[in-house]
Amino acid sequence: MKKLKLSEKSFDLQKLNKFGTLMTLGNGYMGVRGVHEENLPIQRRGFFIAGIYNNTNEEEPEEIVNLPDVLGVELEIDGRPFSSLCGKIADYQRTLHMDRGEITHDYLWKSECGLQLQLSFHRLVAKHDQHAMASRITLTSLNKPVHLSIRTGIDAQQTNHGRQHLKEENVRVHDEQYMQGVYKTTRSDQSIVLSAACLYSHTCNVNYVSKNRQLVSEASTSLREAEPFTIEKFISVYTSLDEEEKVLPHLGLEKVKDLAALGYDEIRKASMDAWDKFWNEQRIEIHSSNKMDQLAVDFAQYHLQIMTPKHNNNLSMAAKGLTGEGYKGHVFWDTEIFMLPYHLYNEPETAKSLLEYRYNRLFPAKELAAQKGYKGVQFPWESARTGKEETPEYAAINIKTGKRQKVASALAEHHIVADVAFAVLHYYKVTEDKRFMREKGLELLKEVSEYWLSRTVERNGQFHILNVIGPDEYTEFIDNNAYTNYMVHYVLQETLKYMSQFNQKDLKQKARIEDALDRLYLPQVNEDMLIPQDDTFLNKPAIDLTKYKQTQGSQSILLDYSREEVNEMQVLKQADVVMLLYLFPHLFSQDVMKRNYRYYEERTIHDSSLSKAIHSIIAMRSGENERAYQLFQEACLIDLGPNPKSSDEGIHGASLGALWLAVSSFLNMQFRENTIHFDPQIPESWSYLKFPFYYRQRKMITEINGGKLYIRKVYGPPVYVEAFGQRHYLEEDQLLEIDKLANYQEEGS
Amino acid sequence: MKKLKLSEKSFDLQKLNKFGTLMTLGNGYMGVRGVHEENLPIQRRGFFIAGIYNNTNEEEPEEIVNLPDVLGVELEIDGRPFSSLCGKIADYQRTLHMDRGEITHDYLWKSECGLQLQLSFHRLVAKHDQHAMASRITLTSLNKPVHLSIRTGIDAQQTNHGRQHLKEENVRVHDEQYMQGVYKTTRSDQSIVLSAACLYSHTCNVNYVSKNRQLVSEASTSLREAEPFTIEKFISVYTSLDEEEKVLPHLGLEKVKDLAALGYDEIRKASMDAWDKFWNEQRIEIHSSNKMDQLAVDFAQYHLQIMTPKHNNNLSMAAKGLTGEGYKGHVFWDTEIFMLPYHLYNEPETAKSLLEYRYNRLFPAKELAAQKGYKGVQFPWESARTGKEETPEYAAINIKTGKRQKVASALAEHHIVADVAFAVLHYYKVTEDKRFMREKGLELLKEVSEYWLSRTVERNGQFHILNVIGPDEYTEFIDNNAYTNYMVHYVLQETLKYMSQFNQKDLKQKARIEDALDRLYLPQVNEDMLIPQDDTFLNKPAIDLTKYKQTQGSQSILLDYSREEVNEMQVLKQADVVMLLYLFPHLFSQDVMKRNYRYYEERTIHDSSLSKAIHSIIAMRSGENERAYQLFQEACLIDLGPNPKSSDEGIHGASLGALWLAVSSFLNMQFRENTIHFDPQIPESWSYLKFPFYYRQRKMITEINGGKLYIRKVYGPPVYVEAFGQRHYLEEDQLLEIDKLANYQEEGS
Repeated sequence: MKKLKLSEKSFDLQKLNKFGTLMTLGNGYMGVRGVHEENLPIQRRGFFIAGIYNNTNEEEPEEIVNLPDVLGVELEIDGRPFSSLCGKIADYQRTLHMDRGEITHDYLWKSECGLQLQLSFHRLVAKHDQHAMASRITLTSLNKPVHLSIRTGIDAQQTNHGRQHLKEENVRVHDEQYMQGVYKTTRSDQSIVLSAACLYSHTCNVNYVSKNRQLVSEASTSLREAEPFTIEKFISVYTSLDEEEKVLPHLGLEKVKDLAALGYDEIRKASMDAWDKFWNEQRIEIHSSNKMDQLAVDFAQYHLQIMTPKHNNNLSMAAKGLTGEGYKGHVFWDTEIFMLPYHLYNEPETAKSLLEYRYNRLFPAKELAAQKGYKGVQFPWESARTGKEETPEYAAINIKTGKRQKVASALAEHHIVADVAFAVLHYYKVTEDKRFMREKGLELLKEVSEYWLSRTVERNGQFHILNVIGPDEYTEFIDNNAYTNYMVHYVLQETLKYMSQFNQKDLKQKARIEDALDRLYLPQVNEDMLIPQDDTFLNKPAIDLTKYKQTQGSQSILLDYSREEVNEMQVLKQADVVMLLYLFPHLFSQDVMKRNYRYYEERTIHDSSLSKAIHSIIAMRSGENERAYQLFQEACLIDLGPNPKSSDEGIHGASLGALWLAVSSFLNMQFRENTIHFDPQIPESWSYLKFPFYYRQRKMITEINGGKLYIRKVYGPPVYVEAFGQRHYLEEDQLLEIDKLANYQEEGS
Repeated sequence: MKKLKLSEKSFDLQKLNKFGTLMTLGNGYMGVRGVHEENLPIQRRGFFIAGIYNNTNEEEPEEIVNLPDVLGVELEIDGRPFSSLCGKIADYQRTLHMDRGEITHDYLWKSECGLQLQLSFHRLVAKHDQHAMASRITLTSLNKPVHLSIRTGIDAQQTNHGRQHLKEENVRVHDEQYMQGVYKTTRSDQSIVLSAACLYSHTCNVNYVSKNRQLVSEASTSLREAEPFTIEKFISVYTSLDEEEKVLPHLGLEKVKDLAALGYDEIRKASMDAWDKFWNEQRIEIHSSNKMDQLAVDFAQYHLQIMTPKHNNNLSMAAKGLTGEGYKGHVFWDTEIFMLPYHLYNEPETAKSLLEYRYNRLFPAKELAAQKGYKGVQFPWESARTGKEETPEYAAINIKTGKRQKVASALAEHHIVADVAFAVLHYYKVTEDKRFMREKGLELLKEVSEYWLSRTVERNGQFHILNVIGPDEYTEFIDNNAYTNYMVHYVLQETLKYMSQFNQKDLKQKARIEDALDRLYLPQVNEDMLIPQDDTFLNKPAIDLTKYKQTQGSQSILLDYSREEVNEMQVLKQADVVMLLYLFPHLFSQDVMKRNYRYYEERTIHDSSLSKAIHSIIAMRSGENERAYQLFQEACLIDLGPNPKSSDEGIHGASLGALWLAVSSFLNMQFRENTIHFDPQIPESWSYLKFPFYYRQRKMITEINGGKLYIRKVYGPPVYVEAFGQRHYLEEDQLLEIDKLANYQEEGS
């Protein structure tokens, strides 16, 4: 696993916040941005705990709280503040070791007065222990004795871009060694206890200072030439989501004592073991002539690990994970449609937990539906702690009018209500978890169905879904969005099926669903073989999008056109009908798929990071394999590409989930009850692919190597495997070798 | 006035926040710290408006709000973020021009890739227009064409060390040019409207962005080699202290339009005219072989100007003025005893306004007294907007116990109640403002007297004042503090006098005051000629303070001893009996003064900035002229000295006021009704002193030059002047020359 590294070879202010995002450490419980220990201009620190949200007043949505900083270090050398910017940096190397969830950072710093200082930083968030974080800093003056002073602790001056969410309830220093800050969110009544301890390699003069929301230890010592000085810092983190508020300080203190007793190396070893286990079980391996392919997939798997709060079914995955303040830490359809499948096919328990997050919020979703005049449940477009609608009411200022614009998504992007139900169905199909379906899933499906029954409008005997926004957010407030209508139809159909299967006796509801299924309008393929994105889309004028595609991701079209103007053109932000083709491949012929892919891709700017990987999948299914691989590679660059600023506010979680979807789609798997069908078409530049997955109690590993397909079932009941027209019965620990790939690839290319 | 400059000759991170404080610009309405435009590590921005206070919850004291930053600029050169730290700085010169209230800042920056960029910054807060601020930045690439991008606007991410006091109510861009942010304090319901406009020397591509509490203009342009690019930025500031909330946006917009129409140079000219007028009227001039003497006094006068809200009698001077968050912008006895005299003897209207601030808060002071079980009024130890006690309940953490320590001053430092009354009396004696005395002063004096009548405790027929803290804050909760008791005696005495003089008929109150005057215990000079600081002080052990005096100002003794331990020793933080000698020189003989000065000075660490200048005065009065000058010089260095951090949180306002007291004491003036007595003993290194002052409708200018004393009355009724045993009658615009100074100096030296 030598290559599980993301490295920064030179110090670059321009990419400071990009790497701050990319190099986030975390364990699903918490995430800490990959910032530098020293304060730097422009640098945005970030430390987040899944589920800790707050707003500063009732008009604002709740947002994930940027917690007190525990990593910052202020150095003074011979009484002068140290800034690495003031001097020359040599031998710079900063690396995120994804294999073990650790950042290392080394460089030689030469001051203007000739001092040569070697700095070495290690940092980790423990994978094996949700509550633990540790760092180690080693400083060596290479060519003269120096007096060193180090200031570090718990800094609650941190805000969410100026919004302060925490009250400093108490700060203490226990046993003249263990710092502890107790904080409470100002309105959501959540407690956070941060404890920190520093161990020094030398006897230091240590003072503790508590002032201005900082609790810091100030240590100073004198060093001889070439004498390394090391500080290890241990941090424990507890919140009222874990335990009763009153026991948190005790837990935090005991934990930080334990950590300090273990020391950095021991903690790292235990954390590394946990990471080893993960990678051994779940790593996708790709041998490609393009190194980015493996890196991007590793990176996606790494982030999908650190962003996912598996430990608590009251939490879900934010669009930006725990890497930044972007989208305020809110949960979107990104989770159910783009990210959940990764977990579902690897750790279905995690997928269940994510669905339970929604199930546990049926009540507020019911309230929201009622408030909008609907029945059943309306999941909010943006969800956080309470399950209420958390979409900000207003977006950025419009400089032409001087006024702020209302955010449309919460008003009409209702497909999320069907998306959540889709994910429940997806979960059930992959796990056959009858208990979940009986106890929770079906209730959710029925409530969602009720919503859509009330959301449709009858016109001339047909049911229409009016005034919605589909996945394509450049087309607002339209009627009969194809994605939405088909999605709703599917959900109603499957709900009906499982109501029968699970002996749900509500005949009235069943009858109403049956009626709706009969009468729900489904946009049909027209004479041009096009599926209309909505009732009016195909009548709108198209424009040349070349200019905007060149700057895709930046929404540059909104600099030239108002949203209202964009709405009246054939301009897509992201996949819409293509999403439909992706989710329901069997509904349309290959020809229809090809035609619609071509048509809509031309009109799609890909200003959303959710777009590329899905287009890659449909390109592949349309037989455009080269284009598919090209789109996959472009999707790999959404966070890892050269744009220095696109990830400043956090990772693109859905895009990472979709990378996994795209890789899996190169295998072209189809699951039909106890048969798994493979039709692999991996990119030509890939000589090897290893792809592990879970399906109905089975752990499977697929490999493609030297033109052959290898399938191994690690555990679980026997399964039928079909590939290249052959059908095999796969028993325990049996390795299946299927040798028709070479031919196939020739056909496909 | 060429020398009215404070310059920084090289860029020094260590002194960043020191110069940020020293180079504050302001006009009494607002103050803006002398920060760099670019963001730098450690740098603390600060922008304050007198009277704008808030707390984030009811348990906290209100603090002066650190307002949205309007000066910050983010530069990008050829697409890369600019930091002056990343490169070489040459020809650095940053200067506070105290003559005109402007900062200029120039340097040449050389990047690692060889780009040479000349940067020039100008900035001012208008003296002639309370609501106006302006800046100008000129950038010139000396050796190659560059693409430049400049980002500046209104940044409401600013906090008070993490405490956010403002809600962003609205942000707008008017006419695609004028940015405006409307903010409201979260609890104190004050509105602030900031408006900003940028004018560029070149046609720029300008975008406006409102996001994350920032409203910024992003301008970009391409420059040829050696082509200067200039941006002028104009800022208008209005608050609900000025006008009704609803008209503020309009006022702000009109003002910023006016400013932009004028341009930077015109605004500077008008502001400079106002500064010229001030300096011409009030500047103290000193020709000394030590240049710091003139600089320090200029600096004191400059800051006493910019910190004083003369425009509103509901505002007073904070201990740190408008230069930092230190002491939360609170008003202490510093104002009445240390700073008010400067205004009183220059602009008595300003002194009156400061007293009215207290008068307008008699009601909360009455409530505070009642709450503590006393009658009359108890002025809070720390006062802000409401007049309630604003002293924080707890100070820093005690690491030995892990607990926070209660702040004692609010509990017992009650001399402030007498100090305010003293200032009222002082004001009346200097102005004979009968209307003020009749309408406000006397009421305040009577309420203060009532307080002290209820605050005293009878023991064996004598009245004692128990459980107080005197000016010396290292001696807490003691009985019969000499300073306090004498001060109270004086206030009662004078109150009685003016009650009679102004025909106050309250015979009962008079009788009670008379009784108290008879029976109030006044610590008497003992057999060792010492005035006991309190009942127990002289019985406590003394320790060698050499070590702590070497680090005076840092409270280093508290690192070795707990406050409780310090309390049981003869250790003074600051002048206490010496303060008494300063305020009541006639109560004690010269011998007693000398003896007590020597005794207490030895035991005083001078950990308070209020101490040095007062000791200088008493040293001088004790005939220790050299020591007096030495102490004066040390007082000059409290802000201007080499300590890089002592002024980080703000200026030492009381010390600046006390510098003026010390200079005036070199003239040794005594005011006896219509006679002014001079007994000048200026330092030997001074060849010239010009000292203007006001006394009872008269504007006087005193000069000492070539051993002669010159006295001129600029306006006002005739006055008697006594010096060196001679008495003169001084009429309109007459210049008096008195020639006995030479002799006298010989005697004195």
